[in-house]
Amino acid sequence: MRRVLASYLCAQRPAQCAVTAVAALALNAPMRRQGTRQGPPAGVPPEFRAPPQHEHQPSEAHAVPEENFEPPQKPTEPPKTLKIDTNAKGITTVQLGRPPVNSLSLEVFEELNKWMLWLGSDGGCNSVILTSAIPTVFSAGLDINEMYKPQPERLRRFWQAFQETWLILNSFPKPIIAAINGNSPAGGCILSLGADFRVMSRHPAGRPDRLYRIGLNETKLGITTPAWVIPAYAYVVGSRNAERMLQLGETPTADEALKLGLVDAVVEEEKLSEAASREAERFMAIPQQSRWMSRDMMRREFLQHIATDEDREYDTQFVVELMMNPEVQKGLGAYMARLKGQQVRK
Amino acid sequence: MRRVLASYLCAQRPAQCAVTAVAALALNAPMRRQGTRQGPPAGVPPEFRAPPQHEHQPSEAHAVPEENFEPPQKPTEPPKTLKIDTNAKGITTVQLGRPPVNSLSLEVFEELNKWMLWLGSDGGCNSVILTSAIPTVFSAGLDINEMYKPQPERLRRFWQAFQETWLILNSFPKPIIAAINGNSPAGGCILSLGADFRVMSRHPAGRPDRLYRIGLNETKLGITTPAWVIPAYAYVVGSRNAERMLQLGETPTADEALKLGLVDAVVEEEKLSEAASREAERFMAIPQQSRWMSRDMMRREFLQHIATDEDREYDTQFVVELMMNPEVQKGLGAYMARLKGQQVRK
Amino acid sequence: MRRVLASYLCAQRPAQCAVTAVAALALNAPMRRQGTRQGPPAGVPPEFRAPPQHEHQPSEAHAVPEENFEPPQKPTEPPKTLKIDTNAKGITTVQLGRPPVNSLSLEVFEELNKWMLWLGSDGGCNSVILTSAIPTVFSAGLDINEMYKPQPERLRRFWQAFQETWLILNSFPKPIIAAINGNSPAGGCILSLGADFRVMSRHPAGRPDRLYRIGLNETKLGITTPAWVIPAYAYVVGSRNAERMLQLGETPTADEALKLGLVDAVVEEEKLSEAASREAERFMAIPQQSRWMSRDMMRREFLQHIATDEDREYDTQFVVELMMNPEVQKGLGAYMARLKGQQVRK
Repeated sequence: MRRVLASYLCAQRPAQCAVTAVAALALNAPMRRQGTRQGPPAGVPPEFRAPPQHEHQPSEAHAVPEENFEPPQKPTEPPKTLKIDTNAKGITTVQLGRPPVNSLSLEVFEELNKWMLWLGSDGGCNSVILTSAIPTVFSAGLDINEMYKPQPERLRRFWQAFQETWLILNSFPKPIIAAINGNSPAGGCILSLGADFRVMSRHPAGRPDRLYRIGLNETKLGITTPAWVIPAYAYVVGSRNAERMLQLGETPTADEALKLGLVDAVVEEEKLSEAASREAERFMAIPQQSRWMSRDMMRREFLQHIATDEDREYDTQFVVELMMNPEVQKGLGAYMARLKGQQVRK
Repeated sequence: MRRVLASYLCAQRPAQCAVTAVAALALNAPMRRQGTRQGPPAGVPPEFRAPPQHEHQPSEAHAVPEENFEPPQKPTEPPKTLKIDTNAKGITTVQLGRPPVNSLSLEVFEELNKWMLWLGSDGGCNSVILTSAIPTVFSAGLDINEMYKPQPERLRRFWQAFQETWLILNSFPKPIIAAINGNSPAGGCILSLGADFRVMSRHPAGRPDRLYRIGLNETKLGITTPAWVIPAYAYVVGSRNAERMLQLGETPTADEALKLGLVDAVVEEEKLSEAASREAERFMAIPQQSRWMSRDMMRREFLQHIATDEDREYDTQFVVELMMNPEVQKGLGAYMARLKGQQVRK
Repeated sequence: MRRVLASYLCAQRPAQCAVTAVAALALNAPMRRQGTRQGPPAGVPPEFRAPPQHEHQPSEAHAVPEENFEPPQKPTEPPKTLKIDTNAKGITTVQLGRPPVNSLSLEVFEELNKWMLWLGSDGGCNSVILTSAIPTVFSAGLDINEMYKPQPERLRRFWQAFQETWLILNSFPKPIIAAINGNSPAGGCILSLGADFRVMSRHPAGRPDRLYRIGLNETKLGITTPAWVIPAYAYVVGSRNAERMLQLGETPTADEALKLGLVDAVVEEEKLSEAASREAERFMAIPQQSRWMSRDMMRREFLQHIATDEDREYDTQFVVELMMNPEVQKGLGAYMARLKGQQVRK
């Protein structure tokens, strides 16, 4: 998978943008800066982007190494946890559909990654709307079962898949609109942070008493947000807001989130789909290579945290070792017992 | 003192958080990143945190080196410039009490550091409210007498104590609420920036004509804010606001500061204490290790500027040498003459 | 030119600020940090500031190498593309005057740089107001003719002059107020980002139907903002706003820009000049060395991208090579054809 992603992005992107000079300059100049200062360029792994020699040979910077192109294949199996549909305008709706609350398992991440890679390459897709097929919840976050009494090898794959989802969303070559049609705490909020625009509905149709909420509320559960997501939260809501929201585990309503900049628009549930499509078209109307290069230059800094194979491997190994610790398992067990208590009470 | 702080934080923190896996991951992962990229981890000095081997041996990352634990002792002398009182809920009020205007001398910093270290360790303290015992002034800032005609050795200790106050406040393991009950320019504002939440009163009770003000107004005096505080100001109010406010030496009123994000809540003076306690309880209700780890991950970047012994030593030596310069002393003398003129006029 | 700028800033600045100790500390401390971490200090090139030995010999940090002082000379020729006038208070108005739309050519940059260097040194100038002599347009941005079918040597000089304008504006020792009296897209907006305060008029006098707009809209033209400007945009409007605005090429009206923080004040066109002068006086009332040092400490980080000769040379060479590419030229040709079509339609 990773190889496919690498060759895909590496080969396709320069081809898309060979037309524009300043754009390519913009893309490569900071890569080189970061290369000099801080090792390999940030964002997606180095091999995902322009080949390394570009950094030292400006005259080759616009060349496209087509022989390296290894296009992603359309997955042969239909997805089990996603519903994917592309309309006449090339807007692809990707619905998370894993009952009861779209908790994010290894399978969800792997399917999402496989299909997003394909959609990034598929000429029929011009934009993605990420939303939920489950009423009242966008996603409840990471599936705790992946971390409780884990098999090390599966846990490792789970964490790598999570990292890859983050990188794929944040470096996707087509606009991603998050249509947040339900509660979106923790991991659910993280998914939406990878989008280019977030539209959220206030509450289920006709139920203004059940306001949806969004936010990184991990502290309330006694855990914390992944270190590589925290700078992205500060990026979106500002450092001081992020600090307070993270400390207190705040989950603002849609309207509060709009004020904080955590979502970009709020609509009634029945108009969410239409609003998301309208935003997708607004992003599609912009020359695409310029659009994603601008976004890449902005996001590169916070993507640095898991930019290299080495960074991701360290991060993954750390999680795996830690999860195997008896103390940690005890804590997770207590948390799962509380979760089950809540479900029974419901 | 520094050794005590180091062993205290190093030994206590991992013990507090051994329960949670993701939390420890979050804490250690960026430390390692920064270790790789930029030398020792930022924030408090490296020895203040997890031992260095954690960075290279993930499997040991959750171990607690208890043999290193050297708990701070309760200071034997009562403080002379502080009033300290802990209530039944474990909320400790620390009042600055150095007439006439709580100017910050070596003794204030040393007492504050000693007692804050103890409170960080004291099981009876769950939260700190930092406020003033002097009507209408939170703190007027650094005591200029420490810099005018200084003895080099005392000046050196003064500056180190100031640096340590900054590090202790910004890495304190329990919530700090600043209850800003008076004017808070320059160094006074700096103290409040180390808190987790800032509540400010508008004016003395019954005196709406005497609005309190807060802000880094050093430029108006012909000096500048310490370089290691400036990024914290930008962190709180945003880069552009910080730049304008620093350039012009702006000291907004409480309500203006609220709009800028420089304070988090504004109340009438008679309700300040109650409001601060309510905020302390809100912060105390969150699992503490998750709370402070989230804050640490956020503040680590701006704490980098004086993160290592070497950085602090360079900074201190620089200040000392500079202060001994005749030109500099001339400038400070002129400033003190103006100050005395103002006091006489009062 | 560059040598003059270097010696000018290097020699003049320490002399200005020898009075204040904390100020010099503030200036030098982060320079040393960045020297340690990331090579030469950021912002203007290393030789523009304090000599390198300052970084290792704090005791020499306040010395002024007067023998290196090489003051800029007043340009002997009157400027062709600028109108420059200084009033009794020492406020110098610099008007861009290159019909039809103040597009930024090599000559504009070179004249602007030469005169700004002189004004920075000229005892008669206390502040600069940067504005336009052309009705309804502040500046339309880079002159596309400099990039279409370029002579490599001229293109190289053009790009270097653009880089130097950015560095001179952002490290100017006197306040710069941008009086934005017309549309200000792309390069026009970039010029204004180098100011210390931005005042904008809403629309031409009596024409509320023709609202002026400002913003980095390069993506709409299929290009992108220079990589070294993007962090300055995020600095002013916040990361998330910058990302969305850059992606969509947003050009908000003056009142929208005010809300975003992209401009600092909005007035009617007939009051713009007066408002700009009032702001200039407000900035002039502050001790100047403290003011610009505060600004320098804030902007240093985003100026890093073209801080060294090597960085600028890499950036320039990259642009030149890229512009010579046939594909790129084809794209630029198509763009120019569209531009001409628009002019014909007008």
